Amino acid sequence: MSKTGAGNFFEDFRIGEVIRHATPRTITVGDVALYNGLFGPRFAVQSSDVFARAIGYPCSPVDDLLVFHVVFGKTVPDISLNAVANLGYAACRVLSPVYPGDTLSAESEVIGLKENSSRKTGIVFVRSTGCKPDGTKVLEYVRWVMVRKRDEAAPAGGDHVPRLPEAVLASTLGDACPRIDVASYDFTLAGSPYRFGDYQVGEKIDHVDGVTVEEAEHQIATRLYQNTARIHFDQFSAAQGRFGRRLIYGGHNGGRHVSPLFAGSTVFAWSEVLSRAEVPGRDEVGALRLRTVATKDRSCADFPLKAGEEDDPAVLLDLDYWVLMPR
Amino acid sequence: MSKTGAGNFFEDFRIGEVIRHATPRTITVGDVALYNGLFGPRFAVQSSDVFARAIGYPCSPVDDLLVFHVVFGKTVPDISLNAVANLGYAACRVLSPVYPGDTLSAESEVIGLKENSSRKTGIVFVRSTGCKPDGTKVLEYVRWVMVRKRDEAAPAGGDHVPRLPEAVLASTLGDACPRIDVASYDFTLAGSPYRFGDYQVGEKIDHVDGVTVEEAEHQIATRLYQNTARIHFDQFSAAQGRFGRRLIYGGHNGGRHVSPLFAGSTVFAWSEVLSRAEVPGRDEVGALRLRTVATKDRSCADFPLKAGEEDDPAVLLDLDYWVLMPR
Amino acid sequence: MSKTGAGNFFEDFRIGEVIRHATPRTITVGDVALYNGLFGPRFAVQSSDVFARAIGYPCSPVDDLLVFHVVFGKTVPDISLNAVANLGYAACRVLSPVYPGDTLSAESEVIGLKENSSRKTGIVFVRSTGCKPDGTKVLEYVRWVMVRKRDEAAPAGGDHVPRLPEAVLASTLGDACPRIDVASYDFTLAGSPYRFGDYQVGEKIDHVDGVTVEEAEHQIATRLYQNTARIHFDQFSAAQGRFGRRLIYGGHNGGRHVSPLFAGSTVFAWSEVLSRAEVPGRDEVGALRLRTVATKDRSCADFPLKAGEEDDPAVLLDLDYWVLMPR
Repeated sequence: MSKTGAGNFFEDFRIGEVIRHATPRTITVGDVALYNGLFGPRFAVQSSDVFARAIGYPCSPVDDLLVFHVVFGKTVPDISLNAVANLGYAACRVLSPVYPGDTLSAESEVIGLKENSSRKTGIVFVRSTGCKPDGTKVLEYVRWVMVRKRDEAAPAGGDHVPRLPEAVLASTLGDACPRIDVASYDFTLAGSPYRFGDYQVGEKIDHVDGVTVEEAEHQIATRLYQNTARIHFDQFSAAQGRFGRRLIYGGHNGGRHVSPLFAGSTVFAWSEVLSRAEVPGRDEVGALRLRTVATKDRSCADFPLKAGEEDDPAVLLDLDYWVLMPR
Repeated sequence: MSKTGAGNFFEDFRIGEVIRHATPRTITVGDVALYNGLFGPRFAVQSSDVFARAIGYPCSPVDDLLVFHVVFGKTVPDISLNAVANLGYAACRVLSPVYPGDTLSAESEVIGLKENSSRKTGIVFVRSTGCKPDGTKVLEYVRWVMVRKRDEAAPAGGDHVPRLPEAVLASTLGDACPRIDVASYDFTLAGSPYRFGDYQVGEKIDHVDGVTVEEAEHQIATRLYQNTARIHFDQFSAAQGRFGRRLIYGGHNGGRHVSPLFAGSTVFAWSEVLSRAEVPGRDEVGALRLRTVATKDRSCADFPLKAGEEDDPAVLLDLDYWVLMPR
Repeated sequence: MSKTGAGNFFEDFRIGEVIRHATPRTITVGDVALYNGLFGPRFAVQSSDVFARAIGYPCSPVDDLLVFHVVFGKTVPDISLNAVANLGYAACRVLSPVYPGDTLSAESEVIGLKENSSRKTGIVFVRSTGCKPDGTKVLEYVRWVMVRKRDEAAPAGGDHVPRLPEAVLASTLGDACPRIDVASYDFTLAGSPYRFGDYQVGEKIDHVDGVTVEEAEHQIATRLYQNTARIHFDQFSAAQGRFGRRLIYGGHNGGRHVSPLFAGSTVFAWSEVLSRAEVPGRDEVGALRLRTVATKDRSCADFPLKAGEEDDPAVLLDLDYWVLMPR
């Protein structure tokens, strides 16, 4: 048998199957530095051990998005090596803070399968979880992805579309954030004077600054996450494909053609406050539900959206998520 | 009020005002590694904990230029988001060594303001300081920068041009360098046999090797410093601007047009020994005052300089600074 | 005398001479993170401290190739600054594991010299060794390289071609790998179910995924290793040279023109099992001798080789090495 890994095809998945993913990873301050160099976050809590300790963390936690990408990267060789499209994400929750020195591993449960009528592909729904060695969950999310079949005639491993929540409930938030000492939270050092109470539902914020993405940057980022998705790395094959370019993001979405992002394009973003919520048992933080929309090569000063059925080719992403803010 | 940060304009500054900058930062070995990958320093003291300890440091200190860039980066959102030109730097001193694990924050005092006759811009003079949490100063420098006005009619917040030293005095050097055990300084491992006594005033050194700068490199470096200067990152807007390119360095200087550096250009450099000095109370090190001139796409074998009033378009930088050398 | 370092020329080397190289280096988790971002390794032992400890390491060791490149980088300023061609490597052995926090230094013994008949160049053979401060050797290898003469008329410093082994003996392997607790080696987390016994001599494996190399990536990697080879960095001079491009790899080999690798090309690879061997005193691991062939802009599905005397322009590398596998 060939040791060349071909990845799983649609008919290889079974509902209820739990896949333990390879390559556990100890997250280090080196990973954090490279993530910072690639993305440029400026959260004081994640940037300064002193700031973090003052408000109740043992030291700066690792940025949630780095944790997400590391966990996600582990799932790629088993789940999406033969994907034709990432369709969606739901029910993503950060469950515990991660600190430099923590080791993360990941597993995925197949919670749904739906063969497409062409019998050439099918949709795989997985609930993926990132864990520390003691079993503490740090992250979980549901992802669904369209995966090729190896053999059109092969039977599907199940036929079930799971019911997924429209949004994460505010009542389930907060596990990844210890109780904060807001009196010690220095709003000047944090770079923003605004507290939970300063944000209004419906308020929109243009993030103004565009960032151009380079080939070396998305390749280094993808390797940092040990994500093996081929489309990032192989210009020789990409030159013969649909776009002729290595793909950074997008290109497909749920059967609709969504604007693909290539190197040399500039990403802009804006956000809207969708709702505000109390977090049970927490009087020192409140939760804001945000929508962040990202575009390429288009300013967000006028808050562009996809207009109904017709895709605005500039819109790359429309993300719905909660953040905790000090009160 | 919009939460979109627009930065300060000239009329927002007041003489004597002290601005505490956001985003304290714990410097890690990860930051050092990425800095090394981007700039390629080969100083034995900064590279080897064993070498550093042998001569009297507790471990390898962080490269002074990384410290400078991290402190400088913090000042950008408050001081120069609306800058049209960096005009100059003076009185920059490294005041204490920084080690991995140290947390840095920064503040700036406005020490001068001078509106330009057009009333469209003015010059802001700040003394910026980097500190550790216990208040130890690690770095200070004066910078002056031409900043746009929001409103031409607005009154300036002051009218004073501070007197700045032509050069740093040798008698003020040495605070960032502990007493060195020169007997344990291994000149072979250091990569150079030359001691303080081997350098003559007027001596010139061609640094020979050119280094080409890539877009991904200056973007990653700028994010590593949490510097938010837009001109590095937004090709979409830059394409509509004067150069049509993201700018790495230069482009303006004191109203004169100085050679801008863009990705794909190759940087060369040479240095001259301007003077030699004793450092008070230190018999194990001496100070050399150096001038380092950098050019783009031009060898420095013939030690090019800007010729009087006429700019040599190849010259990017003409830097005057002191270094300590073992005796 | 000019302090501009010109490097050694062929006539500067003497047989038996031992050169201590500059710039000792403490390897950190930051270096590991950047190496991971540039190369994308996914070895569980090197990735997870928890995995490493379970099988008998004190923590994750540093990837052998990072150790090789750091040691190699130190030799460049003394050995190959005036090289016209890297000719070969032999007898490379990893002798001790390296952990983050270890400091490496390097030295080289000149073990052979052979002037070329043109008298313009000669071949320098060195045995280079990487060491920890207590003298523990971590790596050694022999390299031979064609180096320019400063002066054609100068006499050579010796005339001797050392006898070099065709291959490393399996009986000398294993020093860098502590005794492994295979019962605790989790093959699922390792990402491969295959043990030593699952590999057959003559078996070939296509590694499938191509990786495109960018200018920023090879420049950052080369600086990470503190390797000063000019051909990586100076596009201004390269534009006037034979290729008109910065060189990533190859371009010369033993007088024959070997396929040079430039940015924008995509690298593919395949491997063959050449032989299997017991490691003396070790019943928990076995040794596989592998040949890995890398190509540019050419899939390796048909296992391409250089065909006898005629170079296949796609083949970049043909590497013969041993790996230890758990039984």
